[in-house]
Amino acid sequence: MTPRQGKYHTGPKYELLYHPEIPGRGEYVRLVFEATGTPYIDVSNQGKAGYKKVEQTITEANPPAFAPPALLIHYEGHDGGSSVVISQTPNILLYLGPKLGLVPEGDETALYYVNGLALTALDMCNEAHDVHHPIDVEKYYEEQKPEAMKKSYAFRKKRIPKFFAYFETVLTKNTEGDGKYLVGNRLTYADTTLWQVLEGIDFAFPNTIRKISKNYPVLLSKFRENIKDQKGISEYISSGRRRPFSIGVFRHYPELDV
Amino acid sequence: MTPRQGKYHTGPKYELLYHPEIPGRGEYVRLVFEATGTPYIDVSNQGKAGYKKVEQTITEANPPAFAPPALLIHYEGHDGGSSVVISQTPNILLYLGPKLGLVPEGDETALYYVNGLALTALDMCNEAHDVHHPIDVEKYYEEQKPEAMKKSYAFRKKRIPKFFAYFETVLTKNTEGDGKYLVGNRLTYADTTLWQVLEGIDFAFPNTIRKISKNYPVLLSKFRENIKDQKGISEYISSGRRRPFSIGVFRHYPELDV
Repeated sequence: MTPRQGKYHTGPKYELLYHPEIPGRGEYVRLVFEATGTPYIDVSNQGKAGYKKVEQTITEANPPAFAPPALLIHYEGHDGGSSVVISQTPNILLYLGPKLGLVPEGDETALYYVNGLALTALDMCNEAHDVHHPIDVEKYYEEQKPEAMKKSYAFRKKRIPKFFAYFETVLTKNTEGDGKYLVGNRLTYADTTLWQVLEGIDFAFPNTIRKISKNYPVLLSKFRENIKDQKGISEYISSGRRRPFSIGVFRHYPELDV
Repeated sequence: MTPRQGKYHTGPKYELLYHPEIPGRGEYVRLVFEATGTPYIDVSNQGKAGYKKVEQTITEANPPAFAPPALLIHYEGHDGGSSVVISQTPNILLYLGPKLGLVPEGDETALYYVNGLALTALDMCNEAHDVHHPIDVEKYYEEQKPEAMKKSYAFRKKRIPKFFAYFETVLTKNTEGDGKYLVGNRLTYADTTLWQVLEGIDFAFPNTIRKISKNYPVLLSKFRENIKDQKGISEYISSGRRRPFSIGVFRHYPELDV
């Protein structure tokens, strides 16, 4: 609970503490910065010493973080400034959302609508991850392949349709958003989070998505294209800084697709 | 986003919308009410029509809830009052926490510390659930027993120690809390949530917990006993209203324990 006191801080206020190279769960945090043009440091992608700083910072924080991603926040103050570390992906998004203008203003319940939708999108992300690691997160995919084959069937046949139908309904019911936004008529962190999950699932299960896309025209066309076209997001994509999916949370194993 | 308008509301402000009988994820919400002596209605445990009301309310909400639990909140107003529904367990706890005095006051970052710890405790709950349902949540345990046996090994050997060591460290580092509280020196919803997860894991894996309990003296003795002794919690337990674990999120299958 004690903020760390330090010398006067001159760089960006926010530093993302995450694994290097992969998009992973850190990408949900990067997206809210990129969508709003907010300066941040992606610590472990800044050089060789980066990941060491990530590990140290999250271990020495009080309370420590359970796992990356974590966010290092620098506060300015008369004593030369201080910093805190907060962790858990949905918690970081919750913290940043109102500060970066990614939740509707002047409506208390809207924050909880946005947060509930982001949590549901992240549940879908976790389930997509568990498809290739159904038994043991510390072992290789190749060591749990028969179980992954079984789980991929359930995920493709039942879980993807359940989540997609839910978000299609949310988009349709939000008449104000015209299929472009989940809540209201402006971008929220629920939108950027869901969009990243959709991109990841399309990367992992391209045949499945192609086959069912016509069932979710708002979600998979109108919504997905609109978020991709947001100024900050499209600039991020064309900058080359956005890291491609590889063998992180979302993985493409053809045998797990239809 | 539109609150539902209705006739003047005279009952408790909060109604929990969840499955009947089992403690499940609804119990995390019940605990914050019980710990603070806050009136609430546990809708589906109020009579035969209860669960129908639960299903209708969460479907008709805008945005709809993905799954129970959800919270129906009645607001008083000059137009006769209105109500909203919010969903996702950690989101409900986040909403109620500050209102029920279950987060430290006057320290912005403390809310995010509490929330991050509650999210981590709920991750442990989800993993405990997935032990008996590693492949397909819509099928019976008996249909995925060989995979559950494998997953229980990884959960007992690696995941329980990882989570427990983390929370033992958090409790030890929070010198202000003297091993009794995760954040500061007063009860928060991270405490009630972690306590329920510990109770559930002890129910599901009693031999495992007995075997390792000496490794986590603060977490499994001092902390656990302190939360159980909180006035509202101990009254709730002796009232007989707290539902026993059975075949919900936490399940005791002897073959999955050590």
